[in-house]
Amino acid sequence: MDILRQRILEEGRCLDGGILKVDSFVNHQLDPQLVMQIGEEFERRFAHLNINKIITVEASGIAPALMTGYRMKLPVVFAKKKQPSTMVAGFYQTEVTSFTKHRSYPMIISKEYLKSEENILFIDDFLAHGNAARGIIDICRQAGATIAGMGFMVEKSFQQGGYWLRQRGYLVESLAIIDSLEGNRITLR
Amino acid sequence: MDILRQRILEEGRCLDGGILKVDSFVNHQLDPQLVMQIGEEFERRFAHLNINKIITVEASGIAPALMTGYRMKLPVVFAKKKQPSTMVAGFYQTEVTSFTKHRSYPMIISKEYLKSEENILFIDDFLAHGNAARGIIDICRQAGATIAGMGFMVEKSFQQGGYWLRQRGYLVESLAIIDSLEGNRITLR
Repeated sequence: MDILRQRILEEGRCLDGGILKVDSFVNHQLDPQLVMQIGEEFERRFAHLNINKIITVEASGIAPALMTGYRMKLPVVFAKKKQPSTMVAGFYQTEVTSFTKHRSYPMIISKEYLKSEENILFIDDFLAHGNAARGIIDICRQAGATIAGMGFMVEKSFQQGGYWLRQRGYLVESLAIIDSLEGNRITLR
Repeated sequence: MDILRQRILEEGRCLDGGILKVDSFVNHQLDPQLVMQIGEEFERRFAHLNINKIITVEASGIAPALMTGYRMKLPVVFAKKKQPSTMVAGFYQTEVTSFTKHRSYPMIISKEYLKSEENILFIDDFLAHGNAARGIIDICRQAGATIAGMGFMVEKSFQQGGYWLRQRGYLVESLAIIDSLEGNRITLR
């Protein structure tokens, strides 16, 4: 997706430890026109899969998932990282470790919004070690739901999430793939 | 906004303590088509104000703010509730008390994405006691930015946020106004 690649090269900044910061257009500050184009691209890649619901994780997954849901005319559920006091029905829960944030967090989806007959598309901003994806896999397993595909705005191929997911047969589509951040320089595939 | 009012009446659920749960279409699960209509309605109400940036608060404000930004062709900045490890530049910070969640949280916006010359539209899902709005007012004061308007999907008129903001001269537009949740029954204006 050329426009996304171009924005990453122009505005992305590398931090030590293999972290890419794209705060100016997909996290903290959002460019809604770009996010709509991202939704259109995910629609193109996943339209054939008979998906009935999109799942993402708060907060930075919400924007691309919402636009993808708008284009595909599907509801979007975002997993929460804290149990809300208003979540009165039962819920599925798992524990996720974030390498970027050096901490673990719970990932929670209400049983009301994830059912065994559902065919899920998981959308997120970054695929690095794949820990959020593994959390969603675990939650969908608990619910008995099927994961039809996974779409990421940016994949870091030098971390192991994409390899791990594809090895297990998941259909993974990434709109921009970063092969290296060595020397704090962005190398796109 | 009739379609939003209808969804609130059909799908909203009251919890004790004056809490309205609309998890099935604007929080936890999102209906992207409805959220786009909400963005269009905010565009109609605020188009004349020469706004150059939309601000919201993660996580539940992101969806309506993103669609409003898409319609108005404006960038969207979402305030964070934790300092990300990747936020290397300076930031504005304030402390917000959430009545629903019975806790305080920091509200943080990077200095990169909020400047003194900016004319801000604040968008959020709920206006109750107005604490998130007060946090944004404090952060914009620190930055020297102007708040041109505030748009909320749902206002609870029996709590004091709307009164407090309008008394101080803020332009507040709410797409649905709830006058009472007494007896756990939703009374819309």
